[in-house]
Amino acid sequence: MTSTPLDGTESAYAYPLLIRQLLLTPLAVNPEQQIVYRDRTRYTYRTLRDRIGRLASALREIGIGPGDTVAIMDWDSNRYLESYFAVPMMGAVLMTVNVRLPPEQIAYTLNHSRAKALLVNAEFMPVFDAVRAHFDCPDRLVLLEDDSAFTLPADFVGEYESLLAAASPDYAFADFDENTRATTFYTTGTTGQPKGVYFSHRQLVLHTLALATALSSAPQEGRIHRDDVYMPMTPMFHVHAWGMPYVATLLGLKQVYPGRYAPETLIDLLKREQVTFSHGVPTLMHMVLSSPAAANVDLNGWKVIVGGSALPRGLARAAVERGIDIFTGYGMSETCPILTLAQHKSSMPDDAERDLDIRTKTGLPIPLVDLRVVDTSINDVAHDGKSTGEIVARAPWLTQGYVGDAAASEALWRGGYLHTSDIGVIDSEGYLQVTDRIKDVIKTGGEWVSSLELEDLISRHPAVSEVAVICVKDVKWGERPVPLIVLKPGEQADQEQMLVHLKGFAARGVISRFAVPDRVVFVDSIDKTSVGKIDKKRLRARYQSA
Amino acid sequence: MTSTPLDGTESAYAYPLLIRQLLLTPLAVNPEQQIVYRDRTRYTYRTLRDRIGRLASALREIGIGPGDTVAIMDWDSNRYLESYFAVPMMGAVLMTVNVRLPPEQIAYTLNHSRAKALLVNAEFMPVFDAVRAHFDCPDRLVLLEDDSAFTLPADFVGEYESLLAAASPDYAFADFDENTRATTFYTTGTTGQPKGVYFSHRQLVLHTLALATALSSAPQEGRIHRDDVYMPMTPMFHVHAWGMPYVATLLGLKQVYPGRYAPETLIDLLKREQVTFSHGVPTLMHMVLSSPAAANVDLNGWKVIVGGSALPRGLARAAVERGIDIFTGYGMSETCPILTLAQHKSSMPDDAERDLDIRTKTGLPIPLVDLRVVDTSINDVAHDGKSTGEIVARAPWLTQGYVGDAAASEALWRGGYLHTSDIGVIDSEGYLQVTDRIKDVIKTGGEWVSSLELEDLISRHPAVSEVAVICVKDVKWGERPVPLIVLKPGEQADQEQMLVHLKGFAARGVISRFAVPDRVVFVDSIDKTSVGKIDKKRLRARYQSA
Repeated sequence: MTSTPLDGTESAYAYPLLIRQLLLTPLAVNPEQQIVYRDRTRYTYRTLRDRIGRLASALREIGIGPGDTVAIMDWDSNRYLESYFAVPMMGAVLMTVNVRLPPEQIAYTLNHSRAKALLVNAEFMPVFDAVRAHFDCPDRLVLLEDDSAFTLPADFVGEYESLLAAASPDYAFADFDENTRATTFYTTGTTGQPKGVYFSHRQLVLHTLALATALSSAPQEGRIHRDDVYMPMTPMFHVHAWGMPYVATLLGLKQVYPGRYAPETLIDLLKREQVTFSHGVPTLMHMVLSSPAAANVDLNGWKVIVGGSALPRGLARAAVERGIDIFTGYGMSETCPILTLAQHKSSMPDDAERDLDIRTKTGLPIPLVDLRVVDTSINDVAHDGKSTGEIVARAPWLTQGYVGDAAASEALWRGGYLHTSDIGVIDSEGYLQVTDRIKDVIKTGGEWVSSLELEDLISRHPAVSEVAVICVKDVKWGERPVPLIVLKPGEQADQEQMLVHLKGFAARGVISRFAVPDRVVFVDSIDKTSVGKIDKKRLRARYQSA
Repeated sequence: MTSTPLDGTESAYAYPLLIRQLLLTPLAVNPEQQIVYRDRTRYTYRTLRDRIGRLASALREIGIGPGDTVAIMDWDSNRYLESYFAVPMMGAVLMTVNVRLPPEQIAYTLNHSRAKALLVNAEFMPVFDAVRAHFDCPDRLVLLEDDSAFTLPADFVGEYESLLAAASPDYAFADFDENTRATTFYTTGTTGQPKGVYFSHRQLVLHTLALATALSSAPQEGRIHRDDVYMPMTPMFHVHAWGMPYVATLLGLKQVYPGRYAPETLIDLLKREQVTFSHGVPTLMHMVLSSPAAANVDLNGWKVIVGGSALPRGLARAAVERGIDIFTGYGMSETCPILTLAQHKSSMPDDAERDLDIRTKTGLPIPLVDLRVVDTSINDVAHDGKSTGEIVARAPWLTQGYVGDAAASEALWRGGYLHTSDIGVIDSEGYLQVTDRIKDVIKTGGEWVSSLELEDLISRHPAVSEVAVICVKDVKWGERPVPLIVLKPGEQADQEQMLVHLKGFAARGVISRFAVPDRVVFVDSIDKTSVGKIDKKRLRARYQSA
């Protein structure tokens, strides 16, 4: 390749893509816009900028510099937002601790990331004490405390607000290489210890721009705009809260951070702060909708991206009936995370069932995403809505490997595409649909059965509140699907009714007759992972012989 | 700086920002969307992709490779759009020829850019023959011809459609450094020969994303979305048609290319193809609105960015009265071009005059733009709507210099900011207003007078169709403003009425009494530059002693 490289005159500014620059527009256009933390704090973007400077100064004061890792254990708060900016803007790396992991694993991830400082919400002190027992804890500990009356634990260098109050807002944020690592966090796989993924300033800026473009350019449904009020319902330790705090900041939105998630708090904030845009896992959305507190609240016009797991049709229907513009987003820890959004195309018919079809699809790729469904030789399968393969992708914001795990990194990127381990189909309209996880496929009598499709069909039964289909070993068929079903309060249904419901779909050719289970199991609740996904690993272990 | 560089596993794809990747989403999501060229051609994005491959193959066939420069002289067409993609995607450089320059200057720019191939619309053959006389023309000449019956001129290697028909669509577009030069073109200054600016793949991709985000995230006014139908009214040789063909393609919009601009053709296409989004200079917008063909056409809902010159309030009012969502965009050849858009903020009151105030401002910076108004030591002036200074900027898409002109390049970038040579103010809401050009400032009796502000006030007089204020030498005052005024057909007004109109503003303190001219000159038309801007240089020469 003999193309002409671009070179500039000596004084020309070769603009690096840094997280700092996401603040330029909101500060120039909307400096008085509000950021709200529950009923505790309310301040402007101007103050956000000031506090970002103070946080960086305070961290420098305790010995943090470029290249160091700063870990944080907090609920969703303005402090978390400040750390999203201040830590990477110093050239340091923000490590967002998954507070739902067992203490041993939290210790492992802190240790593995070489965290030099740790910011801990006082509510996590019991967890933190359990974590400490497992390793040499960083000696720079900062307490995050909502209550002004508190005792600083031994060994802590200070409390967040006091440190900020004592620090200068005028930290001189320098330019540096846009490929500098900005964030890192750990993803739990099916086997072994959690694996660290990592993202650069360039990657986060590009994810922000592409996601903002995709969300805002939608004609009507699934659209964000600068009058929206943003509140996350995804923990901020979970893949940058899907990158949305960066998008909300770039667009200068009013932002509302709800602290620990309780349906009543969320609904109260939703109403009081006039929230219009959120995102969360299906389980949380389910909790919010079925909360008594939501019964008399007008949810009309609330826009919610659902991800982390497939959006069940039953949940989508319940949300749409409340006037909620609910739709699927897809991605994972390795992908920053957004790859697709289940937005309507302009040509979509105005039909309620078709509308739900679209909202519950996995979605259309957002700008710059090269998304493919491929066979084992990385050849595209047909886009006919039937041919399955693994979903692989290229985008400017995918982790370039796992920290310190060369074999897993190469497996993730084999053939130059990131392998999602999800199985999917692309239909003739270009919509992706995840049909299964590679490790969660059920092969029965030589036929593949999609547990996700079965879950979707079972969720359509009016008595069903939640469902998870697991794979159990079977002497005759190799494997068989077993649905675990939670009924709605006050509803009744027996196994026979469920099987008749499914046989109806088989009779109409929606699923194969092999896919109809032999039995179902009614349960009181379904186990979830630390990030709220259905924990199929645990469910399999628990119900293997149920 | 000791920050951690980001490195990936060997197989990881280090995604370069290339123009090719703007095509990923529209081809995945909207491959059947239409691209229309007048009444001549109508095809899908799928065909666009196919023709981009054929164009690259055809160019390779005639000896063009990475690093070579390919020049084009055409009206706005699907061919121009194809060249926007195919030429840079090969690693070659697209040189967009300003066909309105005098032949000697066109020859200079072709020569200076070292164009190795030239694509010429048959309509420009007389110009081209005049150009040829001035230099050693590239020996790879391709004819662009709308008429199927034509004679290939001597020395031409072929006609565009025949070459494409004979070429393979399967050109293997390779990856290369995102800093590779993609485009170059020439800007005419006040002195000397035209100067070449240049833009890389990375710069054009980032300009596209930031512009798409800014335009689409507007709550209501000044908003683009994926159901819009796009038609440029800015020549495609003029700063990438403001980058909008790339935005329209990324969003998968229906695109309509109108060929040579004639108000009747534009209005006909607008109506027939249901165009909803355009952009152009005030002069052209003025021509369209005052065309008899527009009289009975419903223009309601048409969105138009106006740039190149300030949007006069009178024109804005006339457009808004027709239901047009008209607003200002600001930038220049050196800036790719967009720096600001005059969009409403959510907090704007619903008042007709205030609405026009916003639409005619220069605008708010789009994402990633670091826009400042500074004194000669590059210190910010107060954001009070009064303090003036030079507008300087940083953004990821500014030319890094002028081709082969080290002194001008350093002057452009002195102090690490691109100097626009525009004088402006920023108000307390963050809106920029250009008040003058550095080279066009009128200093009278020691007071600065803004010619742009005077033009705006004069344009509010109901009899005024067009106005340009020039600076003439004056023995007593040093310089004095002289308005050149074109009256609307059938309207009458004399000098006294005009001066009374302006004295009213002076009496109300809108302008200083020094700013009220001593005389006005009524003219039949106002000279324009090759890109449709008011040609103050020529006007000054012509009316200096009028």
